[in-house]
Amino acid sequence: MADSKPLFSLDGDPMAAEALLRDVFGIVVDEVIRKGTSASEKVCEWKEPEELKQLLDLELRSQGEASEQILARCREVTRTSSTSSSQGWIPMLWRGASSLRASTPASGSISNMYAVNLARYQRYPDCKQRGLRALPPLALFTSKECHYSIKKGAAFLGLGTNSVRVVKTDERGKMVPEDLERQISLAEAEGAVPFLVSATSGTTVLGAFDPLEAIADVCQRHGLWLHVDAAWGGSVLLSQTHRHLLDGIQRADSVAWNPHKLLTAGLQCSALLLRDTSNLLRRCHGSQASYLFQQDKFYDVALDTGDKVVQCGRRVDCLKLWLMWKAQGGQGLERRVDQAFALAWYLVEELKKREGFELVMEPEFVNVCFWFVPPSLRGKQESPDYSERLAKVAPVLKERMVKEGSMMIGYQPHGTRGNFFRMVVANPALTQADMDFLLNELERLGQDL
Amino acid sequence: MADSKPLFSLDGDPMAAEALLRDVFGIVVDEVIRKGTSASEKVCEWKEPEELKQLLDLELRSQGEASEQILARCREVTRTSSTSSSQGWIPMLWRGASSLRASTPASGSISNMYAVNLARYQRYPDCKQRGLRALPPLALFTSKECHYSIKKGAAFLGLGTNSVRVVKTDERGKMVPEDLERQISLAEAEGAVPFLVSATSGTTVLGAFDPLEAIADVCQRHGLWLHVDAAWGGSVLLSQTHRHLLDGIQRADSVAWNPHKLLTAGLQCSALLLRDTSNLLRRCHGSQASYLFQQDKFYDVALDTGDKVVQCGRRVDCLKLWLMWKAQGGQGLERRVDQAFALAWYLVEELKKREGFELVMEPEFVNVCFWFVPPSLRGKQESPDYSERLAKVAPVLKERMVKEGSMMIGYQPHGTRGNFFRMVVANPALTQADMDFLLNELERLGQDL
Repeated sequence: MADSKPLFSLDGDPMAAEALLRDVFGIVVDEVIRKGTSASEKVCEWKEPEELKQLLDLELRSQGEASEQILARCREVTRTSSTSSSQGWIPMLWRGASSLRASTPASGSISNMYAVNLARYQRYPDCKQRGLRALPPLALFTSKECHYSIKKGAAFLGLGTNSVRVVKTDERGKMVPEDLERQISLAEAEGAVPFLVSATSGTTVLGAFDPLEAIADVCQRHGLWLHVDAAWGGSVLLSQTHRHLLDGIQRADSVAWNPHKLLTAGLQCSALLLRDTSNLLRRCHGSQASYLFQQDKFYDVALDTGDKVVQCGRRVDCLKLWLMWKAQGGQGLERRVDQAFALAWYLVEELKKREGFELVMEPEFVNVCFWFVPPSLRGKQESPDYSERLAKVAPVLKERMVKEGSMMIGYQPHGTRGNFFRMVVANPALTQADMDFLLNELERLGQDL
Repeated sequence: MADSKPLFSLDGDPMAAEALLRDVFGIVVDEVIRKGTSASEKVCEWKEPEELKQLLDLELRSQGEASEQILARCREVTRTSSTSSSQGWIPMLWRGASSLRASTPASGSISNMYAVNLARYQRYPDCKQRGLRALPPLALFTSKECHYSIKKGAAFLGLGTNSVRVVKTDERGKMVPEDLERQISLAEAEGAVPFLVSATSGTTVLGAFDPLEAIADVCQRHGLWLHVDAAWGGSVLLSQTHRHLLDGIQRADSVAWNPHKLLTAGLQCSALLLRDTSNLLRRCHGSQASYLFQQDKFYDVALDTGDKVVQCGRRVDCLKLWLMWKAQGGQGLERRVDQAFALAWYLVEELKKREGFELVMEPEFVNVCFWFVPPSLRGKQESPDYSERLAKVAPVLKERMVKEGSMMIGYQPHGTRGNFFRMVVANPALTQADMDFLLNELERLGQDL
């Protein structure tokens, strides 16, 4: 049964977590299955929007709540949602708190596409009707360490991958603002119109944070939309200790952030944050389909967010973020972020103590990149085929660990560097003992190489 | 506890359904939570792809299975998936049967966008790099009854809404092939290059099915990609009795189909079916990001489907379809579709018996469109403000039913027709008694109007 201890204190207590899960399941069965299929139950418990806002308590606070409060919230949400399984619920097909859905456009890649589409629409509203052929050639800028979705998105949105100008990074994988300036001049000289810079906060491989203040200065000088792909690193904002990595993000026009990554919300939970207050989303994406977005409803239709997005029926992914925030509080989430950093740094220190490991670089985030150097290669750094042979190690170890089922850890090549392992420390259940296990296990699996 | 009766025989038995749900929950707790957080458990149970294919039994059959078989399948899937919650599972962030994910691009609107993007890429592969400015002006064709996502998609993909040429429909809402021919000639005369026709199988409001054979003939003559937006009506293919509505769909180049609609799979479950066998998806969307899609894996990397899509991390939505098909069998799903048709036709017959109801038209699908004519308007059809006054009835009744919580049924205007109700009969739990309740309730709610 639920108790009144703060929920975050159950972290690392599987029995308590399981008990809570059983209680939540009980609520789903009671409220959704039993009442939802009972003809005597209402199909919805109508509340005025203001009343609903009070009742659900949408504010996100620093303090986490106890299990019993969280369970009460689960009950409230299911009660105030319309029940699609009810026999009385007939025409629309699903349950859903539609007023919440616009904030979660489904995955980080899609968020990045939204940002690019909004930026070009803001600059050239004609684009919506007349398409890109009516516009001058456009150029957007991102670093060579950016997520692949920027190029995929440019192709999908009809801009073409050539419209993506790749800016140099420094040795830590951070965008070089001077090269951004140079690329902008170059694009202009070639007759293209720069319109957006996509900076990255937490690159996929090295976990690098682009220097946002300097990049924002460049954007300001040239009148460019600043998008920050903080899908991976955005959660660091929750940490007082580490949020300086994102200094300057307050100047962004849009930010992509995936709580399903570092905060481990259930997949998928992805948010696009926008500076705009002029209803840009609705103007850019709205279709005014009268058969879905009736204007003669008995409540304020501005609360219908469906027409702001390019998807139609979708899950209410933001419920997970809201509930997690209520349970953990800002403080609990901060603790998770700080613990992940601390554990990554523990791993780095342990790596350095062992002969068979070589760091790719000192990490500034929770991506720890390193080579395992097997016995036969130790001390052979000067040998001409050292890098080539080292690059073959990770795929072999990966096959062995997967087939044994002992652990799973990713690897990749990077620029001129051959395959290295990338350990991403995000799971709040991980401990120092797990880090030790990781290193021991790699040594065991690779001892004959 | 699970029993060995075929699972579809539990339809309409809430106690049995609840018991099954409890068993599934038990499996999730055992396999995912308990074993997943136990350091002594493997993080994955490696199987060779062929072995896994046999073990999971991906074939979809006509016969449904018993509860105990379905529970065994749930257990098998969780066992053979890698456990992201395990302490040993470290680097990638989530569980997931990645080999399945490409088939479900997340929502019907996105499926339609994929189709348009694939069609233009097939015609002009240059588009991926060079964008739409390198191409002649393009034109695509759809009927005025199409889903709003076609226009939203054209804007998002950079084509602009003007590139969507709207084809006339007949009085039942079906695309008129002769007008399609005319629109194609018109577009060509204006210098645009036609490349795609999007036909609709099951329009949103009237539930109309476009005449696919005649449309396919036009596409063939002009060398156009035939896309069928069967998000709503595609499930009718499962019914021997009603599948004739989709005659000609076998000639399509792409089909969007949402099992989360008529088959009531859990939201979201949306499939894009493609005729292509030349790896068009990968060529069109692939980014070859070496840090995610390593080419030196120890199994056939063609099984990695992630690079075929424009999204990145996503839920394994097709699991729901596979499991539902195993449980119900093709026969059980056919029964659901046939029951929905039968119930819609029952509702139509009952509507006709009552004074206060007027059908918009005889339906050919499960969308039943009708007006409720309140006492004060009966017999006043000839009055000049009849239509105007009738159009105000549905919003008033909607407000009353929502506030009472007795039921929910949608309404919309349509062309020159004022607001009418649209009852969509899809929920397999609905009965004739529910249809009677619907009509009685509308009469009760509107008796003073």
